Amino acid sequence: MSFTLGPNNYGKSGIRLVRVGRESSRHDLRDLTVHTALSGDLDATHYRGDNTGVLPTDTQKNTVYAFARDGVDAIETFAERLARHFVDATPSITRARVRIEQHHWTRIGDHSFTRGEGGELRTTEVAYDGRTATTTAGVTDLLLLNTTDSAFSGFLVDEYTTLPETDDRILATAVTAAWDYQAEDPDDAFYEHAFTRARGALLAAFADTHSLSLQQTLYAVGERILKAIPEVGEVRLSMPNRHHYLYDLDRFGLDNPGMVFQAGDLPYGLIEGTVRREEA
Amino acid sequence: MSFTLGPNNYGKSGIRLVRVGRESSRHDLRDLTVHTALSGDLDATHYRGDNTGVLPTDTQKNTVYAFARDGVDAIETFAERLARHFVDATPSITRARVRIEQHHWTRIGDHSFTRGEGGELRTTEVAYDGRTATTTAGVTDLLLLNTTDSAFSGFLVDEYTTLPETDDRILATAVTAAWDYQAEDPDDAFYEHAFTRARGALLAAFADTHSLSLQQTLYAVGERILKAIPEVGEVRLSMPNRHHYLYDLDRFGLDNPGMVFQAGDLPYGLIEGTVRREEA
Amino acid sequence: MSFTLGPNNYGKSGIRLVRVGRESSRHDLRDLTVHTALSGDLDATHYRGDNTGVLPTDTQKNTVYAFARDGVDAIETFAERLARHFVDATPSITRARVRIEQHHWTRIGDHSFTRGEGGELRTTEVAYDGRTATTTAGVTDLLLLNTTDSAFSGFLVDEYTTLPETDDRILATAVTAAWDYQAEDPDDAFYEHAFTRARGALLAAFADTHSLSLQQTLYAVGERILKAIPEVGEVRLSMPNRHHYLYDLDRFGLDNPGMVFQAGDLPYGLIEGTVRREEA
Amino acid sequence: MSFTLGPNNYGKSGIRLVRVGRESSRHDLRDLTVHTALSGDLDATHYRGDNTGVLPTDTQKNTVYAFARDGVDAIETFAERLARHFVDATPSITRARVRIEQHHWTRIGDHSFTRGEGGELRTTEVAYDGRTATTTAGVTDLLLLNTTDSAFSGFLVDEYTTLPETDDRILATAVTAAWDYQAEDPDDAFYEHAFTRARGALLAAFADTHSLSLQQTLYAVGERILKAIPEVGEVRLSMPNRHHYLYDLDRFGLDNPGMVFQAGDLPYGLIEGTVRREEA
Repeated sequence: MSFTLGPNNYGKSGIRLVRVGRESSRHDLRDLTVHTALSGDLDATHYRGDNTGVLPTDTQKNTVYAFARDGVDAIETFAERLARHFVDATPSITRARVRIEQHHWTRIGDHSFTRGEGGELRTTEVAYDGRTATTTAGVTDLLLLNTTDSAFSGFLVDEYTTLPETDDRILATAVTAAWDYQAEDPDDAFYEHAFTRARGALLAAFADTHSLSLQQTLYAVGERILKAIPEVGEVRLSMPNRHHYLYDLDRFGLDNPGMVFQAGDLPYGLIEGTVRREEA
Repeated sequence: MSFTLGPNNYGKSGIRLVRVGRESSRHDLRDLTVHTALSGDLDATHYRGDNTGVLPTDTQKNTVYAFARDGVDAIETFAERLARHFVDATPSITRARVRIEQHHWTRIGDHSFTRGEGGELRTTEVAYDGRTATTTAGVTDLLLLNTTDSAFSGFLVDEYTTLPETDDRILATAVTAAWDYQAEDPDDAFYEHAFTRARGALLAAFADTHSLSLQQTLYAVGERILKAIPEVGEVRLSMPNRHHYLYDLDRFGLDNPGMVFQAGDLPYGLIEGTVRREEA
Repeated sequence: MSFTLGPNNYGKSGIRLVRVGRESSRHDLRDLTVHTALSGDLDATHYRGDNTGVLPTDTQKNTVYAFARDGVDAIETFAERLARHFVDATPSITRARVRIEQHHWTRIGDHSFTRGEGGELRTTEVAYDGRTATTTAGVTDLLLLNTTDSAFSGFLVDEYTTLPETDDRILATAVTAAWDYQAEDPDDAFYEHAFTRARGALLAAFADTHSLSLQQTLYAVGERILKAIPEVGEVRLSMPNRHHYLYDLDRFGLDNPGMVFQAGDLPYGLIEGTVRREEA
Repeated sequence: MSFTLGPNNYGKSGIRLVRVGRESSRHDLRDLTVHTALSGDLDATHYRGDNTGVLPTDTQKNTVYAFARDGVDAIETFAERLARHFVDATPSITRARVRIEQHHWTRIGDHSFTRGEGGELRTTEVAYDGRTATTTAGVTDLLLLNTTDSAFSGFLVDEYTTLPETDDRILATAVTAAWDYQAEDPDDAFYEHAFTRARGALLAAFADTHSLSLQQTLYAVGERILKAIPEVGEVRLSMPNRHHYLYDLDRFGLDNPGMVFQAGDLPYGLIEGTVRREEA
């Protein structure tokens, strides 16, 4: 009886980096959380604790901060710089994946900023294997809510079905989206512009779609992003259905024409899907 | 040896209420979390499980939703309506406290809204004892960050002190603030206007203060709110010091003139204080 | 118009301390989170940013780790050592409050331990004003559930009441309890023994009480702790009612005699109360 | 330009089910969180909002509660019953994945139980495609800590490396593990027994291994589970490295021979790997 090592990776998660740009008295602020994951010839450390080929996760963290000294523009290019470095500079490492989440701050002064706790995150993930870097961009924790223009009816009914059909409900979700880029020599300007357009398309599709199912909305969102950005080939979406229950006020002699809702917590629906550009 | 019941209260926490205003095709949205707490003659249920005087927390929840049918304007007036009802309509209840947190949504269409997960909350707490309603308003989870104009030096040094003095650091905090109102017949318009001014004063004071200590900033914030709103007599502030550590890049042959920081998590400083209008 | 500083305090929160006892090859492990809060003559820093009297929160943190070098036995005595030090050694500080939460680890080897994420915490809070130290002990996040012997009926009914009476429900709660000690020269052994007895009394009272209301259970828990420990004068309890809803299986042609429940999340009931030893 | 639907699934997440067994006065308690995800011919709802083939997530939730009426034994068999039902009873559904997390409660009476908030979870995931059900079992949020017998040295050094080598450190992790079962007609007894053995092997391997790297510990854990249970072919492990930093007490004239540590939070190392039984 013998055993063997399968797929594996290691890295540093939750590297909290704040970068202040002081080129002028009007400071710039980048607030990032960086996660690294490296793979390669790491049999020795797993089998025998021989760490000769192991670049410590502490070193990976140092590298993130050191690379930030030169400036951080689009998170996609910063992630790629890091991913390329880990593979190109480390003989034992053949593959790196760098994920970055960016917190958005709103300027309230030359060197003053505000935001709420939590909030929507802009994301990227770059994978590099020594030859090719693949880049995805996206958002997570982006909450969207329509107060009307959402229905759900005509669904399959079995012996466990009790849900009534509805032609007017609240539709609320917390979007996680990721899309790839297949661009020639993309630079910071490309990434910033593409992200802005993609996010705008996402919001517009959600607001504009008269929804017969959350699946339909998901598809509409993916399609709209693909239409907006020719360099995107695929959009992956995860859209939890955050149920809002019309509160039964009849019991108190009151009507409730779509006005008073209980926001649900657990359980929630979860709709996940991919929308792709069709090959010609 | 005998025992007795001391101070007590009971209620429903985490009532998630979404209220849609459909007066026009441009829908209005209020997203609230309501907490109730009632006190009164409740000895019988504690001593003997005699629930004659107990208004169930389920009923309290129903009441919140039913009262929302008439519309929700400023959260302060909605909280007061509820607090007065629980005491005035329930013989066994002599005191009610209603706390509300409001989530802010940004309009992206006539019936479409967006926000990030989490976020800054607007808060109120109304206490009513059958005669007088006292009202506080405030914010929580409001993150603020200055990239400069913050120092910390000249502090007390003992045998356990290792912190170096600094004349330029990042100052970051997550403000929880609450202030009282002592106004004649305040209405929805008063509360909306006062809140907007108070929040504006808070942000301005944070951005404008050249900070020699977070305590000084806290005091400046409180004073600015008191100056902005004559009807406020006291401001209570809780301002965690979210440390940002200048990353030591010297080790890699790089300087770091206030540019690359590690955002700390635990532990954090916690500064709490009250600023009051001086009696004449 | 003038303003003044009201009550205030400052300190370090979330100091994560792990103390390994290596007196023998069978290591001892203490895992604590410590929070400090100091008050005193701190007008100068608030009004003018003059930090002469400010013992930095960073120093407070260092002190916690340094004091742990001598060993940590009962958290109550460790908290008192710290509180006394901050006041007695710092002229500007007249009052200190030290709160500690202890994570419990289960031994699985001479130097190996296990626990689940989160978990019940043992707590203490010591306040010292230069003369007297007052000590409370307690627990938080202690989940308790009875599958039967809980009823809720005979309650007050108004126009918003829809809750049916029940003579058999699940009763579930997450106890936060704190009690004071008024003991002559309490030592580590006293605190360890008293905590064990108090926690045991709490569990036994919950399990033994045929509950007609959660208030009744709360009172029974407080009374049982007071009976078990003569040195305790008062018990403060916070017991959220974690509702479990009997799932309606009738709709699927199935009965449900108290077997299948949906565990609720938000909202939850919240019952808070104090039980005191009657003065003779 | 045209677009197409790629991989997709939908279901209900966070179904909170508590099942009380009342066969005797000594009640049994199962506390589960169930997540369902279905796939199949769902083009119509995505493209046109035609929900003919959509089994609502609300129905999926009802099904979970209804199936629990018959009793819940091992979570693996309960998950499989559900997965088979969703595919076999629903023409449009060709694939189901059911994930269950089980919260452990400790008995303190015939119908009374206790646990801490959060805690270690036992997990399972069953996927069924109409022909074959594949079953994994595992744990998540299982915290383990060794106070000694852990070193990290001999690692790769580059220009960003500052980490000193150590021959004695705290090793702490929060294990997420999942392993498959390839058993003939496994029943409840098989699953309960196998889980107990696997968890025991995991703990023993962690406690016994003199660790030269967390990767080595990870491999040892996987190998030990494979050795303990012949029906397991592969173990997937995720082991964050929860750093504990030896606190520098030198500055206060104190030594610190592996006794006083600061438990770190962010960032953390993350080691992930798979250990497989070698094909003969």
